Amino acid sequence: MTDRQSPTGILGAWIADAPSDWSAASRSVATAAFVDCFACMIAGSREEVTRRTLSAVRSWGQGAAGVVGQGLGLPAPWAALVNGTAAHALDYDDILDPSLSHPSAVLVPAILALAEEEGSVSGERCVDAWLVGLEVMARLGEAFNVSHYALGWHTTLSLGAPSAAAACARLLGLDAVAAAHAIGLSASMSGGSKRQFGSMAKPLHAGLAAKSGVVAACLARTGVEASADVFDGRWGLLEMTAGPEAAGFAALAARLGGPPAAEQYGIWLKAWPSCGATHRPIEAALALRRQGGWKPEDIVSIEAFVSLSAQGNLRFIHPMNGAEARFCLPFCVGSALIDGRLDLASFRAESIGRADIRNLTARFRMSLDPDLCDRGFGCALAERGRVEIVLLSGQRLAAACEHPPGHPGNPMSEAALRGKFTDCAGARGLGEAAAAELWSAAADLPERAAGRPLMPWRPAI
Amino acid sequence: MTDRQSPTGILGAWIADAPSDWSAASRSVATAAFVDCFACMIAGSREEVTRRTLSAVRSWGQGAAGVVGQGLGLPAPWAALVNGTAAHALDYDDILDPSLSHPSAVLVPAILALAEEEGSVSGERCVDAWLVGLEVMARLGEAFNVSHYALGWHTTLSLGAPSAAAACARLLGLDAVAAAHAIGLSASMSGGSKRQFGSMAKPLHAGLAAKSGVVAACLARTGVEASADVFDGRWGLLEMTAGPEAAGFAALAARLGGPPAAEQYGIWLKAWPSCGATHRPIEAALALRRQGGWKPEDIVSIEAFVSLSAQGNLRFIHPMNGAEARFCLPFCVGSALIDGRLDLASFRAESIGRADIRNLTARFRMSLDPDLCDRGFGCALAERGRVEIVLLSGQRLAAACEHPPGHPGNPMSEAALRGKFTDCAGARGLGEAAAAELWSAAADLPERAAGRPLMPWRPAI
Repeated sequence: MTDRQSPTGILGAWIADAPSDWSAASRSVATAAFVDCFACMIAGSREEVTRRTLSAVRSWGQGAAGVVGQGLGLPAPWAALVNGTAAHALDYDDILDPSLSHPSAVLVPAILALAEEEGSVSGERCVDAWLVGLEVMARLGEAFNVSHYALGWHTTLSLGAPSAAAACARLLGLDAVAAAHAIGLSASMSGGSKRQFGSMAKPLHAGLAAKSGVVAACLARTGVEASADVFDGRWGLLEMTAGPEAAGFAALAARLGGPPAAEQYGIWLKAWPSCGATHRPIEAALALRRQGGWKPEDIVSIEAFVSLSAQGNLRFIHPMNGAEARFCLPFCVGSALIDGRLDLASFRAESIGRADIRNLTARFRMSLDPDLCDRGFGCALAERGRVEIVLLSGQRLAAACEHPPGHPGNPMSEAALRGKFTDCAGARGLGEAAAAELWSAAADLPERAAGRPLMPWRPAI
Repeated sequence: MTDRQSPTGILGAWIADAPSDWSAASRSVATAAFVDCFACMIAGSREEVTRRTLSAVRSWGQGAAGVVGQGLGLPAPWAALVNGTAAHALDYDDILDPSLSHPSAVLVPAILALAEEEGSVSGERCVDAWLVGLEVMARLGEAFNVSHYALGWHTTLSLGAPSAAAACARLLGLDAVAAAHAIGLSASMSGGSKRQFGSMAKPLHAGLAAKSGVVAACLARTGVEASADVFDGRWGLLEMTAGPEAAGFAALAARLGGPPAAEQYGIWLKAWPSCGATHRPIEAALALRRQGGWKPEDIVSIEAFVSLSAQGNLRFIHPMNGAEARFCLPFCVGSALIDGRLDLASFRAESIGRADIRNLTARFRMSLDPDLCDRGFGCALAERGRVEIVLLSGQRLAAACEHPPGHPGNPMSEAALRGKFTDCAGARGLGEAAAAELWSAAADLPERAAGRPLMPWRPAI
């Protein structure tokens, strides 16, 4: 049984019945997300966490769903797990503000794996499924956050699993009742703590969410049923994981009929492969660097002011490896200030112990921004990063950033996005020409006819 | 990295290093659990939720892990999922008090699936893995409950996943560090709300926990790492899902070295296929029935007094199907009072609408027991069920029960356990002789040499 008035019932009905005539603007956001996520998967496919995850699952059957850069096909759940882990391995993948989570690292691997396994699915239907998944992720984010995120839940898994289930239910063409069950079942495969940040489990969370979405939708298709609603009311996930401060589902039905999340919020395509909470302070520091007239050696002290939310995520001070360095604000800001850039090479093993960066980070302090933090954790949705530098000369420099490059409020140029794509492809040894070809193939997804390959790159290592 | 002082570090070290020379008493508890769980899997294998779950996963590869009663082998994660769902489908499977969860429906399918896939595993090692898994489940239960359970978490999944991971890590012979990672990874695959009670997702939770244990242990074996600790401290699962009232991990290390949970607590083998919260009121009602001198038709009113915990689980008043009837106290008590028994036939579709039961349940009331509930939800570990009946003659009858049949405080006779096994086998069309043969095969597990089949019954439907 489902209840059409409950959150899962409302979502299920919308997943089944929402029109598929998305606007050009929405389609464009979706296409950019596929291209950007594909870049992240290529780069992430060589990471240890991805290799090890693949190694664990590859004996569990062969299938039609491709694994990026591995030249093999797996059953859809395992391909979704490995590709989702790859997509998030470098923390280079996109962000959706109201859910405070990574949408495409979850949605794209789930959609591609299921579509390849089902066969005869067009690229257009993949785009449609992504827009449905993004919509559900945004509306769950509105209902649960920011108290859900503040309590420690890693939304990429906790809200990602039902969002992937929604995308997969749409792709499979489930009816309203089955789509509600898909979401309800996936809610029992979510969870996930931000305590895993800085470990391999963090990127694995994206893979787990993608896998759970595939599994939940396929279970619902064969008739496995969940509760009439797992989100609202006593023992509902809202009460259990977000508490009384969360906005809840009062506006859910109206919002599903309003402007699509892809246009209302857009997605944040990351310019740098580090935790999203580092991006605003990095951009503020780079703005000071662009002003010129001083060198990193001139710095006496540098202080970054961040929100409570950002501070919580940035728990590493002396990073031991790339995964921890992505969540270390001194390292990220210091590295960007010295090099004038932050890219995949910045986080390679040989960069972590660099003396020039360590020397600078010794003069670094991270503080709470009182303007933001007096408002509590809720300011996460109106973020800001501020940096103050004192030079040997006594001069004081200060800058603040609300919209880092790539954020919908400050979109990256196509040249910058192509540069990121090339950087990612280079991490797997692909030259500029090969990268350009792959870029075109990825961007062509919406035009791909049913039955044609959906995954642009599957060669062996 | 792991931290040997953290809960996952302590558990990981213990999983790797605990002696395998369990006492005869512990082994005997484990063997009984395997036999009883196997009975539940046989009966549950014909349930719709099991068939539908198998239908969803069977295209995802073949493997060496048998599915009870299906004549086929799957990769270990999917066999664990289907068999775990079957084991819990009828709510006939065993209970562990401190975790308030179902241990064997999680541990047995995970252990057997992984052991069959690995090959060359003896029955003795399966028993050892079960005892390790039970120990972890008990110690997590002590740390998290009862506030964790009170907040709505379905411990069979939330604590079951790490327990299954512990059992699988032991079976694979992981070292202390990898075993800690296995538990840490599984914690990101747990979750699960009691709101799913009465739906197919409830038994699926046992399957999901079993599957997650297999997957987490195999990921840890190939080197996928979790946080140094996912349980304790800020954003740890204890804080996130149990809150400040939980006992926590202070006593963990000492308890792991003390009497094994199998002897300290034992397990509760259920006499009736209904929610554990129904068993004490049922036994109280049956005690009054055994006193004799009256008939169900003589009842003017019947009132059952239960704890807050039991009341929360028993949320169905007018059950629509067997799954809901198992969580409906009026149905369970009424059915037992009229028939003098409660078995699988009591919950078949044709029994749910029985006029004689409905007629009796109209005179039924469920009330909170003030003696228990003044102490809050915490009384869940010192449960009691009390029943008061008023007859047409004006006579008042009253009885209470603390230890229902099958509870470690009131063990079932071997004849009663054999009767349950025969009832379960009969649900799959197996006669008494075949059931007796299967009973012997299941009870023989500890003697099974490496390389011999571990699953006693795998024929096709």
